[in-house]
Amino acid sequence: MTTSFSGTDRLRATLARAKAASVAAARASTALKNRALDSAAAGLLRGKAVLLRANARDLRRAEREGLDAAKTDRLRLTPQRLEAMADGVRAVSKLPDPVGRTLARWKRPNGLRLSKVSVPIGVVLIIYESRPNVTVECGALCLKSGNAALLRGGREAFDSNRALAAVFERSLLKHGLPPACVQALETTDRRAVDFLLTREDDIQLVIPRGGESLIRKVARAARMPVIKHYKGVCHVFVDRRADMKKAEAIALNAKLQRPGVCNAMETLLVDRSVAKRFLPSVGAKLLAGGCELRADPAARRFLPGAKAAKARDFGCEFLDRILAIKVVDGVDAAIAHIGRFGSGHTESIVTRDRAAARRFVERVDASSVMVNASTRFADGFEYGFGAEIGISTDKIHARGPMGLEGLTSYKYIVEGTGQVRT
Amino acid sequence: MTTSFSGTDRLRATLARAKAASVAAARASTALKNRALDSAAAGLLRGKAVLLRANARDLRRAEREGLDAAKTDRLRLTPQRLEAMADGVRAVSKLPDPVGRTLARWKRPNGLRLSKVSVPIGVVLIIYESRPNVTVECGALCLKSGNAALLRGGREAFDSNRALAAVFERSLLKHGLPPACVQALETTDRRAVDFLLTREDDIQLVIPRGGESLIRKVARAARMPVIKHYKGVCHVFVDRRADMKKAEAIALNAKLQRPGVCNAMETLLVDRSVAKRFLPSVGAKLLAGGCELRADPAARRFLPGAKAAKARDFGCEFLDRILAIKVVDGVDAAIAHIGRFGSGHTESIVTRDRAAARRFVERVDASSVMVNASTRFADGFEYGFGAEIGISTDKIHARGPMGLEGLTSYKYIVEGTGQVRT
Repeated sequence: MTTSFSGTDRLRATLARAKAASVAAARASTALKNRALDSAAAGLLRGKAVLLRANARDLRRAEREGLDAAKTDRLRLTPQRLEAMADGVRAVSKLPDPVGRTLARWKRPNGLRLSKVSVPIGVVLIIYESRPNVTVECGALCLKSGNAALLRGGREAFDSNRALAAVFERSLLKHGLPPACVQALETTDRRAVDFLLTREDDIQLVIPRGGESLIRKVARAARMPVIKHYKGVCHVFVDRRADMKKAEAIALNAKLQRPGVCNAMETLLVDRSVAKRFLPSVGAKLLAGGCELRADPAARRFLPGAKAAKARDFGCEFLDRILAIKVVDGVDAAIAHIGRFGSGHTESIVTRDRAAARRFVERVDASSVMVNASTRFADGFEYGFGAEIGISTDKIHARGPMGLEGLTSYKYIVEGTGQVRT
Repeated sequence: MTTSFSGTDRLRATLARAKAASVAAARASTALKNRALDSAAAGLLRGKAVLLRANARDLRRAEREGLDAAKTDRLRLTPQRLEAMADGVRAVSKLPDPVGRTLARWKRPNGLRLSKVSVPIGVVLIIYESRPNVTVECGALCLKSGNAALLRGGREAFDSNRALAAVFERSLLKHGLPPACVQALETTDRRAVDFLLTREDDIQLVIPRGGESLIRKVARAARMPVIKHYKGVCHVFVDRRADMKKAEAIALNAKLQRPGVCNAMETLLVDRSVAKRFLPSVGAKLLAGGCELRADPAARRFLPGAKAAKARDFGCEFLDRILAIKVVDGVDAAIAHIGRFGSGHTESIVTRDRAAARRFVERVDASSVMVNASTRFADGFEYGFGAEIGISTDKIHARGPMGLEGLTSYKYIVEGTGQVRT
């Protein structure tokens, strides 16, 4: 499958550099890693002109190729955006080192002393689309956690990503660390990714970031672990005992504050007994906010201006000002609906009834389950992690918002005095 | 690839039952799960005659097909082995419930109260060879951890595994739990596994147990997370400051106590300055223990009876009474050798020098790193986990000996008072 691709020798060299860099990064002290990060932050500011020129090349190509406006905007670097990136890198430098923490310590009857200590993962391949800020974020987080980052951004951002990675390379070199701690792939050939995903002994983890189809493709092809996030189909359930004011504020915030992201609400569930009281006001405000409503027949009775929901609207990730609305009979019906249509990302109940809240929290299977709060809080920064490499809807390793800790593994250290097994 | 296989409808039904069972298992109380386990333990004893008859059918087929002696022995059930299995299930019932533990709890400045609580993973597919005891162990551990187990044992043990799973099914039914909490696949068609490994939305985790080629095949085909253990190439390094008596006891134990398992030593590294003092005695004892020695030239000088090691002997998992031996120059050379040839399983240093021990512990990248102890201790029971579902040489999710905790994920619970994001 990959034999016809002539770039494998260069990729093997890239992988060998990444492996060596991961060993050095794993041994680097916290102070050294932080100095390299601070130096990269300074480099982003000092190198503004060069970075903007590289980005301008990408933008010109994007224009020639007719890239759409949203993608072009995500691709664009500005002095302000570079400053925000530098701030982000400095913030990572200030976070506690996730490596070398003693997670547990115990002693066995035979005198063996055990401890479980956090260590880096190794070589982490990150596959993403045309957002150059991901290059900087992921480079910084991998370096802080002692991993070597292999960055494969979208073709559209090729020049920008190379220039941003070069900032890291110079900072790493300056502090005596291998520049390959943060490497941007030197090719945009898709077969390069196909090849890398078969190298299970060289790459310890793959993190794809982007649309569901990209992520499914990566997960299918990869022979090594993948941490992924397919989609966020988040629900808010307004219980019969909800505080109506809070329910309205939460529903409006969850849908309208930033409709294009994975933790925005996609379906609103309302208990039948409060539908008449709750829906007219929130519906009018959602419509006023530019949101299209797609409601089931019971909800439409109270929602002038709503369209009839089709079956496929439930479970759909609109990522837009569109909302599916359904009336349900009680918390168990809401839990059942979410069990069928949810994506395991974030689900919220609004209620003053502690028993209903407890039931919802226990029975809903999602990475974040909320009570009386907007789904928009599902986020590494909002949770206080200080960083976010992504949100996982897997149940393995990291689930939900994934900070620096998610970029570590652990080892067991066993100290004896000559014990042998009998 | 799988379209020509006619059994997919039945497998889809199996997966639907597993999904429903996983929901029920996740909600089951500790007491209920333990009652079902105790009842399964009793069923193994009460059903001895039926189980031995099913096993006899497998053994007759194995004889007809000329299965080798070692595999036939692993396949065989005896009254004693059934009693040991029942003891194992009762021991799992006595372990603390890994589900519902609060792993962390904190509060945010905006008043949101967060907690991180352990939850089951879902549907776990276990693929193994012809050892019926794996059926019982994995069934018990998955049930205790609130997961639904899908068990795909070797063709040779088909009747035994079906009969053992039936014991679980009856116990689950008796306690009002879905029998599909522990399901043995009803087919030995290899295409069934191929099909299951493409069902990433139905199966949350795959654990292959067996030889490296089986495991690599599974990891390549699976679209869902796989926790695996390719091999154990464990080293013992005898440092210049080792206590020679302890070093000898550890080397003999690590090699000879049970040579066929993954935590046995495969290569002995000896510091040049103690080679003359250490090797003659340990070499004679290893030879007396029936062990073949394959040594590098420097070691052979002190090892009458040793063969010359070939390049491929280093890094080889013999799983037998064969040992590669090499003389190295100091702890850094030992660390470098292990970095090149180790499999990331378990590595041990024997030394009284604290600085050398610290260096070894910090720089060796393996799931277990030991000081003055036999590699044979790398084991869930020896670590005090009370159980072991396998040993992972991956760095994701679970690394090293994996007990009940490794069969759980977590969810974030966010409790607010109407907070919205600004």
